[in-house]
Amino acid sequence: MKPLEVTIKSKQNQQLKAWRKLKTSKGRQKAQRYLIEGWHLVEEAILSKAAIDKIIVSEANLALFNETFPTLNHPIEVLADFLVADLAETETSQGIFAVLAMATAKESWQPLANKYLLIDQVQDPGNLGTLIRTADAAGFDGIIIGDGTVDMYNDKVIRATQGSLWHLDIQQMALEKAIPLLQTHAVPVLATALYQKAIDYRTLDKTNPKVAIIVGNEGRGVQPTILEQADHLIYIPMYGKAESLNVAIAAAILMFHFV
Amino acid sequence: MKPLEVTIKSKQNQQLKAWRKLKTSKGRQKAQRYLIEGWHLVEEAILSKAAIDKIIVSEANLALFNETFPTLNHPIEVLADFLVADLAETETSQGIFAVLAMATAKESWQPLANKYLLIDQVQDPGNLGTLIRTADAAGFDGIIIGDGTVDMYNDKVIRATQGSLWHLDIQQMALEKAIPLLQTHAVPVLATALYQKAIDYRTLDKTNPKVAIIVGNEGRGVQPTILEQADHLIYIPMYGKAESLNVAIAAAILMFHFV
Repeated sequence: MKPLEVTIKSKQNQQLKAWRKLKTSKGRQKAQRYLIEGWHLVEEAILSKAAIDKIIVSEANLALFNETFPTLNHPIEVLADFLVADLAETETSQGIFAVLAMATAKESWQPLANKYLLIDQVQDPGNLGTLIRTADAAGFDGIIIGDGTVDMYNDKVIRATQGSLWHLDIQQMALEKAIPLLQTHAVPVLATALYQKAIDYRTLDKTNPKVAIIVGNEGRGVQPTILEQADHLIYIPMYGKAESLNVAIAAAILMFHFV
Repeated sequence: MKPLEVTIKSKQNQQLKAWRKLKTSKGRQKAQRYLIEGWHLVEEAILSKAAIDKIIVSEANLALFNETFPTLNHPIEVLADFLVADLAETETSQGIFAVLAMATAKESWQPLANKYLLIDQVQDPGNLGTLIRTADAAGFDGIIIGDGTVDMYNDKVIRATQGSLWHLDIQQMALEKAIPLLQTHAVPVLATALYQKAIDYRTLDKTNPKVAIIVGNEGRGVQPTILEQADHLIYIPMYGKAESLNVAIAAAILMFHFV
């Protein structure tokens, strides 16, 4: 199955043109595909049995690639080295990419596991990626990404996840719809809120294996209508003069408390 | 004290030239000064009584500035609006800056407080800034920034601190020297390390108000020679398939455990 020669030799190549479109959110939505880059991510995608359409290797990387993955069955294209920069999102590209199929939303999805992180309108790609990576490390089972959150297939998000996006059940769904589903399955829903309205997270029952935690936008926090649906409003006491915590930091403290 | 007219009108202005040099680490070292940008940071610097040399306001911002700070006694320069981009580090500058004096290292410094975060060769400015912000929120008293860590006066670091750099006792000092000082003052020194060598952080005594936590480089962790000096090597158990935690996330979980 291993190609021995360069298959993509020109900027005008139709496949290359199609892949380039995956660099924008619009292009990804239309194709229902996304692009990843770098040895670590491609290896994680393979190991995680992610939905890989195609692996793209630069000519300079071909020998190392064949050595690293001697028994791989994925379709492979070999990119002329001068075209690497054309596809790369990073300044120092490693010359290895993959195109993957987006997960399709399931209308019948149910929260059958124990621990969920719910994300309400987080805007920074690094924050979203770190939230996904940290939820994985904390042993959370799933993530629900609400409307108005940054595109999870953005390359900066994927890099910050370090591959954790393929380890968890990730659903893109309105939180207004997800919260009652969780509650039907006896998962207590906790939302981070301001001091005045909320209780110290450490006062809650830690013995229940089920928990859902909602974190919100970097500036505004969780939307008021979402707060109203939650079972408990919680806060992290702060001791110094800092006014707030970064959203990924706050989520980490909470998730590792409820592990 | 409030100037009513523009004092900096040309790219060739000597003060403007000197301030521009503060955008590089080398320029900051030479001048022992650093530049901050944006309403929030300038306000935090004023409220924190940071060592402000000068405040720089764009002409467009002057009325709002005088209204916001009616009784301020700092020297102020007014920058012609077309020169804002010349000094700005962000694409959408708010047109307000300040020049501050760096803290000078004290040879006689002693760790007389309870809680310290020690930083070993962290490279990402966002991570260093978030570490400082989170240490502040966790009520830590001081931070010791070891050799080989990214310049703390880098504008990305300062932005990520959200002003917390002025709330804590921050020392730049070789960790090899700081650790024995902490130990002399009966502060137990914990270093984050790999599973095989370390103990679960939750098994340690939480009742001691004194603690120092060392976190390390994003890729390599804490240096082996530093690990050898620590009293305890600790790790955060991970439950999912993620291979590691972001350094600021790991530090947050540990600091909020020992609050």
